[in-house]
Amino acid sequence: MVIRPYGYRIWELLQSDLDGKIKDAGHENACFPMFIPESYLKREAEHVEGFSPELAVVTHAGGKELEEPLVVRPTSETVIGEYMAKWIDSHRDLPLLLNQWANVVRWEMRPRMFLRTTEFLWQEGHTAHVDEDDAMRETLWALDAYEKVARDLAAMPVVPGEKTPGERFAGAERTYTIEGMMRDGRALQAGTSHYLGTNFAKAFEIDYQDADGNLVLAHTTSWGMSTRMIGGVIMTHGDDKGLVLPPRLAPYQVVIVPLGRKEQAETTAAKAHEVAAQLKAAGVRVHVDDKRPQLSPGFKFNDWEMRGVPVRLELGMRDIDNGVVTLARRLPTEEGQGKETIPFDEVAARIPGILEDFQAFLLRRAEEFRDSHTRPVDSWDDFTAQISQGWALALHCGRTACEDEIKAETAATPRCIPAAGEADSGACVRCGEPSAYGKRVIFSKSY
Amino acid sequence: MVIRPYGYRIWELLQSDLDGKIKDAGHENACFPMFIPESYLKREAEHVEGFSPELAVVTHAGGKELEEPLVVRPTSETVIGEYMAKWIDSHRDLPLLLNQWANVVRWEMRPRMFLRTTEFLWQEGHTAHVDEDDAMRETLWALDAYEKVARDLAAMPVVPGEKTPGERFAGAERTYTIEGMMRDGRALQAGTSHYLGTNFAKAFEIDYQDADGNLVLAHTTSWGMSTRMIGGVIMTHGDDKGLVLPPRLAPYQVVIVPLGRKEQAETTAAKAHEVAAQLKAAGVRVHVDDKRPQLSPGFKFNDWEMRGVPVRLELGMRDIDNGVVTLARRLPTEEGQGKETIPFDEVAARIPGILEDFQAFLLRRAEEFRDSHTRPVDSWDDFTAQISQGWALALHCGRTACEDEIKAETAATPRCIPAAGEADSGACVRCGEPSAYGKRVIFSKSY
Repeated sequence: MVIRPYGYRIWELLQSDLDGKIKDAGHENACFPMFIPESYLKREAEHVEGFSPELAVVTHAGGKELEEPLVVRPTSETVIGEYMAKWIDSHRDLPLLLNQWANVVRWEMRPRMFLRTTEFLWQEGHTAHVDEDDAMRETLWALDAYEKVARDLAAMPVVPGEKTPGERFAGAERTYTIEGMMRDGRALQAGTSHYLGTNFAKAFEIDYQDADGNLVLAHTTSWGMSTRMIGGVIMTHGDDKGLVLPPRLAPYQVVIVPLGRKEQAETTAAKAHEVAAQLKAAGVRVHVDDKRPQLSPGFKFNDWEMRGVPVRLELGMRDIDNGVVTLARRLPTEEGQGKETIPFDEVAARIPGILEDFQAFLLRRAEEFRDSHTRPVDSWDDFTAQISQGWALALHCGRTACEDEIKAETAATPRCIPAAGEADSGACVRCGEPSAYGKRVIFSKSY
Repeated sequence: MVIRPYGYRIWELLQSDLDGKIKDAGHENACFPMFIPESYLKREAEHVEGFSPELAVVTHAGGKELEEPLVVRPTSETVIGEYMAKWIDSHRDLPLLLNQWANVVRWEMRPRMFLRTTEFLWQEGHTAHVDEDDAMRETLWALDAYEKVARDLAAMPVVPGEKTPGERFAGAERTYTIEGMMRDGRALQAGTSHYLGTNFAKAFEIDYQDADGNLVLAHTTSWGMSTRMIGGVIMTHGDDKGLVLPPRLAPYQVVIVPLGRKEQAETTAAKAHEVAAQLKAAGVRVHVDDKRPQLSPGFKFNDWEMRGVPVRLELGMRDIDNGVVTLARRLPTEEGQGKETIPFDEVAARIPGILEDFQAFLLRRAEEFRDSHTRPVDSWDDFTAQISQGWALALHCGRTACEDEIKAETAATPRCIPAAGEADSGACVRCGEPSAYGKRVIFSKSY
């Protein structure tokens, strides 16, 4: 996967916000090696079993065959665990709150741009704590941070919840997830947070002396959000004309297209840069499209629509005569609004509010879409019908074997046990056995 | 190499400044794959010859042997060249100004923390231009940006210049470097910028239609600065007590150590946080060391000296009674100053200036050290004597074979032909043949 500048800028905007949240909560960034000795992975049995099929392996380096093959990290619990063990001696060293921004590799049989790529970028938080309580607080803190990034920046109304045992991270005691609905009705796992219990602490001897001098195992967590979020933004809001970007993650929030040819083009371009300077001063990311005289206005309008720029301002000689710019939102018809004009001296004051409204509109639209494509189902027929168009809320027995049957037959998997789900119980939608979890589970096809 | 949070913070501070410079000059960040098909590297003959001995190779992935081995990028000219060829059609597409922040791998026989590590972090700029003039402007722009980062942030008074042909980047027409002197008298190459001519354009078919419709090869550049700079900072300013950090790259510019036990500790800690809040408001990165009651003040003082914190403030009950804090700079004796006291109400106003003075002092000290360890030499005896303690400015014939002899005998290499060097010529210090370059060359041992 190559991420071109326009896409990478979306990632930088997300990264900047999430990095701030991570640091404000007391975590520190660090950098661990990308190559992990194969033997490290083997120390945690479930972990190596889960990741083995996806590993890329370096066998030769510096012109020689290596004595021990090196795995390119699929995730870094093992190498960070090795160092946590060295750095933690006393309860005074806890909590240890680390994060790293890194690339990881998971060999994909069916790669899909942004969503499933062999190499991807992410942040991975790795923390160690004195006990389960403190580690669980951390696990849920990360989940909450991810929900906020998804909702507030990406306008993705994700559902936080716990994964069923069959869908847990390899080596975790509990895995939490935020799940978003894409416009084809499928679910996207947009971030996960794991309470690892003492599994990795045991495997890597991450222990500490408590206040009484006893040697105790630490409880660890890990959590990650990745460039998959770029795919999430595209598939939550996009349409047949291309991207629709939420303003807070848009590389350009406003593009100004000056119109006219020759001298007129110079006049409108000059005015466009004047307006752009005002918008920039108001904190708006703005671009003037005046360097492509060979392209028609219509081509440019389509181009920026395809790129999902939230607001386009057109500026022709008639606009200048009238003292206005002409504004078009990326989704004017759904808003019930066509083009409108804004006087020059109101542009800088009004655009920030228009962008905020557009951000809120996208979140609301995505919420409505999700809610209208989510339905409780109580029979297998209803289940299969609902799965073909969206999310099914179903009672489930909790047996992994039953999950596997559902998956084999419908391609749907349990996405999460929603944190906010109401108490409910009864017969499993598939096998009729008594339901588990005390509430309904979201089932859906996914990526 | 593991970079712990304190070291990684230095990198983040450098990265933030350099990324701003790169973007302000019109470059955009992107992300290219870390795995490069071996065949890509082979397309530029000098390039593959230069990097082959240092490559790490992935031969197995997803449980199978790969049909074509994948090289873990040692640098990305080849994979980015492949995409530049796709993206560039017309002169209107130029210049193409790309940058990426990435990890790269060069298998090291003699690794050395920060300076020579198998994996390191860097930014790599990759640009394409219509002609040599524009590409050379870019090459020298990057060199100038690196010199500013080294001088203004790291307080490293580096010497910019061109590499001799024997020291060029594999595949470059011209390589430029900034060279800093470490406190053992050796040179550190702290950043390089390459004019690649049309070498990679030929290998990857990076061509464009000019205004007249002719198909023309683009001229490309590449340039990089890496986590090696963390090592540069340590070895330019450090001493027997540990690090000495220039304030602009110091994770903590000021550490406040409250003194006393029990109730007194609570009183001094409260006052310390009050002072810290004032400093934070004044834009100072400050830390209060009040969470380690088990450690003595002396231990804490040594600890922060080892970590190179520029300014330490001590705060005891007597200081509070006197309405002052006690200040100690990291290098008080060389400054000719011991501890001094500052009234509480002057701390926030005076510390920023003290930090700027300290930054300037470190640059001046490094310049004086470099200048007193650099000497023109005109005989082989003088050359070998000078090489053992610093840099030799020597006339050289310019033959790579002669460079190789010098290296074999003294371990010294030509570091650069300094851009600011005065015109000079005569007999080669080694072989007596007529000198090349029209000026003296810096020879030194290096890392």
